[in-house]
Amino acid sequence: MKGEASAIAGPVRLGELARRLALDLRGDPDIEVKSAATLASARPGQISFMANPAYRDQLLATRASAVIVPAKTAGLAPCAALIAEDAYAAWARLLGLFHPVPAACPGVDDSACIDADAVIDPGAEIGPLSRVGAGARIGAGVVVGPGCVIGPDARIGSDARLAGQVFVGAGCCLGERVVVHPGAVIGADGFGLAMHEGHWIKVPQIGVVRIGDDCEIGANTTIDRGAIEDTVLGRDVRLDNQVQIAHNVTIGDHTALAGCVGVAGSTRIGRYCMIAGASGVGGHLEICDHVVITAMSTVLNSISEPGQYGSGIPARPLRAWQKILVRLGQLDRLFRSGR
Amino acid sequence: MKGEASAIAGPVRLGELARRLALDLRGDPDIEVKSAATLASARPGQISFMANPAYRDQLLATRASAVIVPAKTAGLAPCAALIAEDAYAAWARLLGLFHPVPAACPGVDDSACIDADAVIDPGAEIGPLSRVGAGARIGAGVVVGPGCVIGPDARIGSDARLAGQVFVGAGCCLGERVVVHPGAVIGADGFGLAMHEGHWIKVPQIGVVRIGDDCEIGANTTIDRGAIEDTVLGRDVRLDNQVQIAHNVTIGDHTALAGCVGVAGSTRIGRYCMIAGASGVGGHLEICDHVVITAMSTVLNSISEPGQYGSGIPARPLRAWQKILVRLGQLDRLFRSGR
Amino acid sequence: MKGEASAIAGPVRLGELARRLALDLRGDPDIEVKSAATLASARPGQISFMANPAYRDQLLATRASAVIVPAKTAGLAPCAALIAEDAYAAWARLLGLFHPVPAACPGVDDSACIDADAVIDPGAEIGPLSRVGAGARIGAGVVVGPGCVIGPDARIGSDARLAGQVFVGAGCCLGERVVVHPGAVIGADGFGLAMHEGHWIKVPQIGVVRIGDDCEIGANTTIDRGAIEDTVLGRDVRLDNQVQIAHNVTIGDHTALAGCVGVAGSTRIGRYCMIAGASGVGGHLEICDHVVITAMSTVLNSISEPGQYGSGIPARPLRAWQKILVRLGQLDRLFRSGR
Repeated sequence: MKGEASAIAGPVRLGELARRLALDLRGDPDIEVKSAATLASARPGQISFMANPAYRDQLLATRASAVIVPAKTAGLAPCAALIAEDAYAAWARLLGLFHPVPAACPGVDDSACIDADAVIDPGAEIGPLSRVGAGARIGAGVVVGPGCVIGPDARIGSDARLAGQVFVGAGCCLGERVVVHPGAVIGADGFGLAMHEGHWIKVPQIGVVRIGDDCEIGANTTIDRGAIEDTVLGRDVRLDNQVQIAHNVTIGDHTALAGCVGVAGSTRIGRYCMIAGASGVGGHLEICDHVVITAMSTVLNSISEPGQYGSGIPARPLRAWQKILVRLGQLDRLFRSGR
Repeated sequence: MKGEASAIAGPVRLGELARRLALDLRGDPDIEVKSAATLASARPGQISFMANPAYRDQLLATRASAVIVPAKTAGLAPCAALIAEDAYAAWARLLGLFHPVPAACPGVDDSACIDADAVIDPGAEIGPLSRVGAGARIGAGVVVGPGCVIGPDARIGSDARLAGQVFVGAGCCLGERVVVHPGAVIGADGFGLAMHEGHWIKVPQIGVVRIGDDCEIGANTTIDRGAIEDTVLGRDVRLDNQVQIAHNVTIGDHTALAGCVGVAGSTRIGRYCMIAGASGVGGHLEICDHVVITAMSTVLNSISEPGQYGSGIPARPLRAWQKILVRLGQLDRLFRSGR
Repeated sequence: MKGEASAIAGPVRLGELARRLALDLRGDPDIEVKSAATLASARPGQISFMANPAYRDQLLATRASAVIVPAKTAGLAPCAALIAEDAYAAWARLLGLFHPVPAACPGVDDSACIDADAVIDPGAEIGPLSRVGAGARIGAGVVVGPGCVIGPDARIGSDARLAGQVFVGAGCCLGERVVVHPGAVIGADGFGLAMHEGHWIKVPQIGVVRIGDDCEIGANTTIDRGAIEDTVLGRDVRLDNQVQIAHNVTIGDHTALAGCVGVAGSTRIGRYCMIAGASGVGGHLEICDHVVITAMSTVLNSISEPGQYGSGIPARPLRAWQKILVRLGQLDRLFRSGR
C-alpha cells in the first residue's frame, strides 16, 4: 500500500489516475471520474473494471466513463480504458485511492480501560470500551476499535487495525499492518485434553499465537494458542470469516483460507496455498506449498505435491442423490460379484 | 406479531385463549391454564400441543389440561383441545401470549458510550457498555443489549432487538423488528483479495449490509459488507447460528438458513428457500425460489427448478464406510473393465 | 485438579516431581528441571514426554534432562525418566504444576457494570467492562474476564472461569469449575420458527441452558437455550471452538466435541462420546454412550451401538476425484445394466 500517496477526494482526471497507478491510458486524459462502480451500475463520471471475460456483455454496454481492462479487451470498451493485464489488482489499487483506510486518530477513549502497565504508543488509537491488559504493547498507528480486549503482555505491531470486539489473548503477538475483523478470537486455549481415570484432564496451553506482518483475520475466526510451542501464521496470510485454527498449526506466507475452513492441531500448511470454503484439514499433517483445496473437502493425508485436491460432492436433485446413496451401499457387493 | 395485544399473566380460561387465538375449542371454556409445557412434562393447569404425529403416544398419555391439535387428532386428546390445522404456528402464537417479548425500557445506560452525533430515538433502550458511533440512527422501540457496537452511520429500524455483543458495521442498515443474537457480526469486510507480484492486495470493501424487516440473525453469524454494491437480505429472512454470508450475496424474502451454513460471494438465493445445517453454497450462483437443500450438502451449481437437492452422506459404521471408500477409488477401473 | 497443591516456581528436583505426581523415577532424584518443552526443543534443565510412539526418534535424540514415558519406552530415554503408562495424562498434571491457573483476584473492576440486584460472592473476580444483570449469582472463586455479559438470573458456579467476551443468557446455569473461552454464546434463542400464512412466526424460546460441573466451552461456540425444556450438558463435557449446539440437545458426561461440530435440535448424545472436527449431527436423534464419529461426517440416524462411525471422504488430486464424481453419477445405470 505504501507509496500510493494521498487519497483522491472529488473528481480526478484519467491522466492523473494513469500516472498514479502506472498504467497506460487509451482515451482522453482530461476526462474526469469521481467514483468507482460495477460495469452494470456505473454511470458517466464513474470508473469500472473487467477482469473476468464472463462480463464481456456488461463491458460492451457499460455507461462508465472509463474502465480498467487488459490490453486485449480494451478495444471492446465503449469508453476510455486504463490498461492493466492484472485488472483486478489494478482495481484494488484504484479503490485504495478512492477509499483509503482512515488513519488512526491518536489517543485513548475515555471509556477504554487501560492497565497502568500497558505501553501504548502515542500514535495509537484505542477506541471506546476497549481493554488493554498489563504489559501489553500497542504500536504506532494502531487502531483498536470499540469493545476489544487485548490481554496482558500481548503485542500489536504498528499500523495494525482491530475493527472492534476482537480478543487477543495473553502474550500473543500480531505483526505490522495486521487487520483483524470483529469477533475474532486470537489466543484462546487449544483443545488439549487427556482422559485419566474416566474424566478429562485439561492440558495447560502454554504457547501463544504469533501472526506475521500483513495478515488479515476474518470475523469470528478463532486461532488457538499453542500447547507448548506456538501457533504461527507467516506473513500476508489471509483468513476469511469463521475459520478455526487449532493449536500448534503453522501457516506459510501468502496462504489464504476461505470462510468456515477448519485446521486441526499441529498441521503445517505451506506458502501460497488456497483452501476453499468449509474445507477441513486434519491434524498432524504437512501440506506443501502451492496446494489448492476445493470447497467442502476433507484433507486427511499429508500432501507433498503442489496442485489441486478435493473431495466435495456437488448437490443434485434429492431423489437422484438418494439413488446414488443406495448404490454406494451396494458397491462392495457389486465388486465382489463381478470377480 | 401485531394485534396479539396484551400478554397473559396468571391463569387464563380456555374460552379466552380460543378467542384470542381465533381457534375452535372442544371442551369446557372455563378450564384454566397458566403455562405451557411439552406433552410429556405437562401437568394439570398447563397447555401443550402436538404437530408431529410421531408424538401420538405422548398425546394419549398427557396430563395437560388442554392441547392444541389439528381437528383429525383432537379425538385422541384426553383433555380439552384447541383446534388448529397448523398446530405449531398456533403454539408459537400461544407462547407469544404467555411469554411476550419485553418492551424496550427507553433510555441510555450510563455506561454506554454514545457519539455526540448519533441520533437515538427517545423510545429506544441502549444497554450497558454499548457503543453507538457518529451518525448512527437508532429507531423507536429498539433494544440494544449490553456490549454492542453500532458503527458510524448505521441504521437500526424501529423495534429491532440486538441481544448483546452484536457488531453492526459502518453504514449498515437493519429493518424494523429485526432480531440479532449475541456475537453476530454484520458488516465486516468481505474477503476481497487480488494477488499481485506475489503478495495479496486487499480490495477495499465499500458496500454495506442491508437487512429487511422482520429478519432474525443467529448467534455468531457473520454477514459481510458488499465489495462495491451491497449484501442484501430481504424481508423475514431467518439465519440460525454461525451462518456465514459473504459479500454481495442476496437472500430473498422468507428464506431460512440453518446453523453453520455458508454462502460464498455474489450468490443470489431466492424466496422461500430452506437450507439445512452445515451446507455450503458456492459463489456466483443463482438459486431460484422454493429450493430446499438437505444437511451438509455442497451446492456448486445454480439451481433453476424448485425442489429438494442434496449431497450429504449419512454416517455408517466406520469399517463399512472404509470399504466403500476403497471401492470409490476403484470405481473408474470397474467402469473401464466392464466395457 | 484438586490435591495437586501448590505450584512449582523455579527449579524442582525430579525426586520431588515423582513424589508429587506419584510416579516411579528411573534416574537421579537430585537432577533439577525448571520448565517443560517438547522432545525436539527441550534443552538441559527441561522436562518433556512421549505418549505417541511416532516420536521415538525424537526421544532418542532429546536433550531434555528428564522425560515422562511408559515403562516399556523408558529404556530408550537418554536421560532420567518418570514412568507413567498414561504419559499424556501425567504430562497434563505436570504442566498444571508448572503453569497453575491463577486464582481469582477477588473484587469487581471499577469499569464493570453490575446490576444492583446481582449477587456476587466476595471471592469472585469481575473484570473490566463486564456486565452482570439483575438477579444473577456469581459463585466464589469465579473469574469473569473482561467484556463479558452475564444475563439476568444467570448462575455461575464456584471456581468457573469466563475468559472474556463471553455471553451467558438470562437464567442459564453454569456448574462449578466450568471454563468458557472468549466469544462463546450460551443461551441465545433456539432457531424455532413456524411458517404461517407465508411468513415465519418466531416460537418463543423459554428454556435455558444448564451446564454441569467441569465442562469446557470453546471460543465462539454457541449453545442455544431450550425451546420449552432446557438444553443440557452433563459433567465434564468438552466442546472445542465454533461448536454449535441447538435447542434442547442433551450431551452426556465426559463427551468431547471437536472444532466446528454442529448438533441439531433435540438430539441426545450419550456419555463418553467423541465427535471429530466439523461433523454434523442431525436433529431428534439418540446417540448412545461410547460412540466415536470421525471427522466431517454427517450423522442422520440414531446410533444404538457403541463404536466408530463416519462418512468423511479424504481429498484426492482433483482430477482423480472428478473422475469418481462422474462415475458416481453413472452408478445407478451400471447397476441396472449389470442385472
